[in-house]
Order: sequence, then C-alpha cells, then structure tokens
Amino acid sequence: MSTPLLDIARKAKQASYEMMTAGSRFKNAALIGIAKAVEQNADVILAANENDLANAREKGISGAMLDRLALSKARIADMASAVREVALLPDPIGRADAVWQRPNGLRIEKRRVPLGVVGIIYEARPNVTLDALALCLKTGNVCILRGGSEAINSNIAIANIAIAAAVEAGLPEGAIALVEDTSRETAKELMRLNGYVDVLIPRGGASLIRSVVENATVPVIETGLGNCHVYVDATADYKMAAEIILNAKCSRPSVCNAAETLLVSEKIAAEFLPGCLSALAEKGVEIRGCEKTRVLYEDVIPASEEDWLTEYDDLVLAVKVVSDTEEAIAHINRYGTRHSEAIITESYINAQRFLDAVDAAAVYVNASTRFTDGNEFGFGAEIGISTQKLHARGPMGLDELTSVKYAVYGSGQIR
Amino acid sequence: MSTPLLDIARKAKQASYEMMTAGSRFKNAALIGIAKAVEQNADVILAANENDLANAREKGISGAMLDRLALSKARIADMASAVREVALLPDPIGRADAVWQRPNGLRIEKRRVPLGVVGIIYEARPNVTLDALALCLKTGNVCILRGGSEAINSNIAIANIAIAAAVEAGLPEGAIALVEDTSRETAKELMRLNGYVDVLIPRGGASLIRSVVENATVPVIETGLGNCHVYVDATADYKMAAEIILNAKCSRPSVCNAAETLLVSEKIAAEFLPGCLSALAEKGVEIRGCEKTRVLYEDVIPASEEDWLTEYDDLVLAVKVVSDTEEAIAHINRYGTRHSEAIITESYINAQRFLDAVDAAAVYVNASTRFTDGNEFGFGAEIGISTQKLHARGPMGLDELTSVKYAVYGSGQIR
Repeated sequence: MSTPLLDIARKAKQASYEMMTAGSRFKNAALIGIAKAVEQNADVILAANENDLANAREKGISGAMLDRLALSKARIADMASAVREVALLPDPIGRADAVWQRPNGLRIEKRRVPLGVVGIIYEARPNVTLDALALCLKTGNVCILRGGSEAINSNIAIANIAIAAAVEAGLPEGAIALVEDTSRETAKELMRLNGYVDVLIPRGGASLIRSVVENATVPVIETGLGNCHVYVDATADYKMAAEIILNAKCSRPSVCNAAETLLVSEKIAAEFLPGCLSALAEKGVEIRGCEKTRVLYEDVIPASEEDWLTEYDDLVLAVKVVSDTEEAIAHINRYGTRHSEAIITESYINAQRFLDAVDAAAVYVNASTRFTDGNEFGFGAEIGISTQKLHARGPMGLDELTSVKYAVYGSGQIR
Repeated sequence: MSTPLLDIARKAKQASYEMMTAGSRFKNAALIGIAKAVEQNADVILAANENDLANAREKGISGAMLDRLALSKARIADMASAVREVALLPDPIGRADAVWQRPNGLRIEKRRVPLGVVGIIYEARPNVTLDALALCLKTGNVCILRGGSEAINSNIAIANIAIAAAVEAGLPEGAIALVEDTSRETAKELMRLNGYVDVLIPRGGASLIRSVVENATVPVIETGLGNCHVYVDATADYKMAAEIILNAKCSRPSVCNAAETLLVSEKIAAEFLPGCLSALAEKGVEIRGCEKTRVLYEDVIPASEEDWLTEYDDLVLAVKVVSDTEEAIAHINRYGTRHSEAIITESYINAQRFLDAVDAAAVYVNASTRFTDGNEFGFGAEIGISTQKLHARGPMGLDELTSVKYAVYGSGQIR
C-alpha cells in the first residue's frame, strides 16, 4: 500500500544515495541559491504567514505563540543570512576521524558520512523549516520536515521556495521534503518509517517529545527538556552567584537552558539568599521555596515536590537550602532533566566533584546555564539540544548530523 | 506500582551514579576478581548449564542451538580470560576528545562518560552474560541483562558469581543485574523503562531485533542483521576474487558478516563464474542464481526476488550477473542490510566509487566481509555490530559504550 508520505519517503531514500556523494562546493552553492531565493520571495512568505496569523487569531491563540509564529521582513532576512552562514561552515562529511593499519595489512578509515534521511517534527515556529533544511543539506542529509498545523502556510511557502532553488542548483528531487498533511496520523506514520527514516528529531514542547518517544520505532534523538539548576556553594562569591542566577533565570525564561531551581548551601543561605531573592523579585520572579527559604525571606510561596520537577519556562524560581555539595548533586540527579547544571564556588574540590558527579549534558563551574547552545559552544549552528545520551548529548551541530562508515582498503585479505 | 524489574531498574540507576565516578584501577580490580571467581566456580556453572541442556533436549531443541547453549571447562576458561583481556584495555572514561576556549574565556571540555544503565536483551548464548557485564563494568556502565529462557540456569549461575565478586571488590549493589523472569511481558517492560534505561542493545536473531525496535520506547542500538555482498568487478584478479568469496561464504556461514550474495560483472562472468561456482559447490554451497548465471553454470537453482533479500546464515549463496559497478551498487543499496559489502577490483575508479556510494557500516576493497568484527578492527572487544546509523555503526567497542558530557570552566560568565 502506498500513502502520500510513503511516496515522499521513497523519493527521500532514493535522493539520499545521491546526496551521500555530493561535494561541499555543490551543497554550498545550493545553500547560497536558497538564501537568495528566500530573500527575493520574502513577500510570498509574508503573505502565507499572514494567513497563518489570521487563522491563529481566529482560534484565539495567545501572545507568546503568535509571537513564535510571526515573521517579518527583518526576520526573513535573518533566516536567509543564517543559511549563508551555514554555507560558510566547514563540511564534516568525508573527514576521517581516524585511519589505522592492522597487522594483516588492512587499512581502516573511519569516515564521516551523512545520516541519510532525517525526519524533523516541530511545532509553530516557521523559521525551523529553513534552518533545519539548511543544516541537513549542508551535511548531505535528506530531510523530511513535518511542522505544526499553525504554521503550515508559512512552511509550505518557505519549503517550496527552497526546493525550487535547490532543484535549480542541481539537487535531486526529493532531497528536501515538507509533509503538508499535518494530521496526527501522518505524524505517527512518519515515526514508524523504518527502512526510510534514519533518525527523527522532535523539536518542541514536552508533550511533542513524549509523543515521539512513545510512538516512534525509528531511532529518535530526544531534545530540549530543561529543568536546570544553579547551586550556590558555601564558598561562592556572592556577587558572581547573584549575577549568574539572575542571568540564568531572567535573560530568556522561556528557553530550555534557563534555570528553574536555585540550590543554596545552608552555610551561607542567611547571608546570601535575602539579597539575591530580592534582586530576583525586582525582576518580577515569583519565588517558591523550601521551609528554610521561607524563614529567610518573606515573599515565598511554599514549594511542593512538584516544584522540584517543574520546568516553568517562566519567571518562576524554585529555591531550596541544602546541607552541602553532595545534597545538591543528589537533588539535581534526582529531579533534573540532564540538560545544564551549574555550581558557583571558589572551592577546587567542590567544583571538581560537581563536574564529575552531576549527570547532565553540560555542567558549569561559575557560569550561567544559558551558554548551552550550539553558537555559544562555537559549533556555528544548532539543530537542537539532545537530552539523551545516545549519539549526541547537549548542543547538536553539524557533526551530530553525521554517522560513520568504515572504508577498508585490502589487498586480498581473508580471515 | 512497583514490579521486580522496576526495583532492579531503580537500584541500577542509583548504582549508575556511583559507577559514573569509579576509577579505572577499581573497575579493573573488580574485573580480575570476576574472572577468578568464574574460574574457581566453573563446576557450579557447568552444573547449571547441564540443567539447561537437559531442558533443551527435552524440548527437542536442535543441534546448532544446543551448541550455542553448551558450556565446557575450556569455554569457561576462555570466557574468564576474555574478562582479563577487557581489564587490560585502555579505559575510555574521562578522556577528553577535545578542549577549547571561547572568546568569552569559557573553557569547554568534551569528556567521555558512561552511558549510564545499559539493557542487553539476548538469546541462548550464556557466554554473552559474562561478556556483556564485563564490557559494561569496564566502561562504568550498569547493566541489566535479560537472556533467553533456554540459558536461564547458566545465566543465573554466571551472574551470581560475577555479582558476588563485584560486590566483594566494592562495586555498588545493583551495578550488575540479571532479570531472572524470562517472560515476554518482562522483556517488554524493560524496553519501556524510560528514565531508568539509557540504551537497550538487542543481540540475537532477526525476530528479536524486530521485536525490540517495534516495542522499545528507550533508545535502542539495532545490531547484527547482515545480508552482505561481494561484487567481482570486470578488472578483478580471479584468484583473489574466488578466495575472498569462498572465505566470506564458507569460513563461518552462520555469522552476520558472512556473504549472502555474489555479484559479478557481465564482462567476466563467463570466464570467472564456472570455476568459482564449482569451488563453492565443492565446499557444499547451494547456488541460487539469476538467468545469466544459470546459462553459465549447471547446478543452479533459479533465484527469486526473495533470495536477494535473504540472510541465509547457511551454505547457500545467491548469484547475480550485473552490467557494471553502478548496477552492483544499486543492487546492494536496495537489498542490503547496510552491514558489510566488498568489491574485488583492480580499478582505482571503481574501488573509490564503491567506497563512496555503497551505504553500509563497512565497505571493503579486495578483502573479505568477515573482517567486520571488533577484534579484527583492533578494538580489543565487541558488544555487537550496529547496523543503524545513530550513535554507533559497525563493530562497537568500548568507545561505543560511552556518551559525552561538556564540562565548562567559567569565571563568572553570563550571557
């Protein structure tokens, strides 16, 4: 039986064999062509986006979500220039991570190759469409994009412009595909296209990620959930600690690398917490604290077990006084989502212990959790932040969109 | 609700935090202790194995499977010495693959860490129990082993001896666990222990692998299916080509890196095939060939579409005459399982094209597919051969049992 998605998948698989051997110059020329076409057709994209926005308003969709959905001339220009930047990055494909020779004379090369067909399931942000297809193209991957229904008109407009430019640059048909049917059934079909889809990357909120993990039979990279902690150790510099927690909580509360819980050593809680919490309150942060926190500061809502588990993604902070670094580590390993965790300390021993014992993608000493990001790490681009341990962990750049192949050079060896 | 398996998983997760920071010297001492205990208690293991063998014979289980199940003094000694060899391998944990500094002064270290809790689901071979637990222990991983019911007495005996030795060496309780309940329900529960199991590795036949891929919600590494091809190009050295195909087919037909299909360029088919096929027939190989093959050699069963897809794991070989390297590549990419593929050629151009365009874990020029193996590649050990592209591809050694963590050294940086 054939379905529209299966047709897309078959073409994608076929295209992936051509893309596997596509050179960097060719791929980069296609990226530049796409960037140019997106700029030249900005009006088409904006008109489609206007449709999406009108539909969203009709459905009574809220401010933050409308904001994620909305494009502008300036945003489209930014999107196009991001594609140009991707073209300028070094291409990981074809690089040998290692070459060695065996006693029998076999030479073995561990070579970077594309993953093949990458499925991306995402929500309302139409800029992900261009971003994801550019990163996949750069790494010789074929992408099957399945965005949310709210952005479908914008996504179709962006994808069509990119596909036309890619085909003009000589890319095989099917190397970039958008699934126009945004039904749940089609999303589930995409999650089970074993033999066609080599990896599925969900980008979005907790319920999307859960649904993909629950339903997918193709390999998945889980991304983005971030219940991040800042632990202020007994030896911390108070000023640095307050600056870091303010930055980690307030600079962009809606993102996954924002802090959700502040842990403070009981040795300094009385001295440190009142000033820090009042600075947070001034920024509009609601505090939910443990019993000890509530003794030290007035305006604190009692924290429940649920609070230690919650990724607020908002100006809310859970606060807990802990006895020492070990209790902080145990709390983080119990309640955290293994995303980004920070200790503020002047103690060499506590810093090293925290780095070793906290189980997370990124563990910081004396820096904000907000740095967990492909650009901040120097990867030049990011397809998401993995919170699983398989394949990729933390910010995923171009290397994380590759697999390996062993090329073995023989001269008649048998075993 | 708690189940016996959930209790195991909770203890395993708890133990994984301790194992995360366990040093190499400590882990190696535990391995040596385990090897010694296995040797000293060989009689206990043999007695348990005798029970399994008696049960198997009662069920009328066949020769090959009985063989995989059977242990002997010599095999147990081999198993123990393999554990000692694992102790001697370099420990990948704690190694930094890269350290770099960002313009804001942040120093970022990409550090090898254990995966955490590794589930292994396997079939009738009791030696996998010791092998898998040793590789997991070496890499600081906690393992939950779930072997087949046929080997349950042997597995319990081996696991109990290893666990006792590990605990004596100071390993946390729960760092090695065997699931004694071999029901399908418990296997499925293991496949869905998100939050406890970081990766699940199935080792066994096609139906086991399929069941895990179909049912698991935890990350899986698919292993071991091998429909491997040898392509004899028009420029091949006939003697080398015949030696390689004989080796790839006959040296151990039941394993995943054995060849299942021979592809031959039509330019040399008439000269090469009769001699090669008669040599194969002498070794007892049944030939299933395309029309052109049947014209060139007498004793050939007509091959159907099904034959191109089949991993015989037996002395059977499908043979197809193709027009050129491109047709060989297209055939392999269509019917292969992306395991191991070989070209026999003297042509530089065809060799390079085959290496580039064939989509498989290991691609060989002028060597047998049988070399796809952790030991043959020089990894010193192997937990399986991945046929997926995510995380690991091809033979998986100690490195493939690790994940990464970014340790970030700051001095007050905010974003």
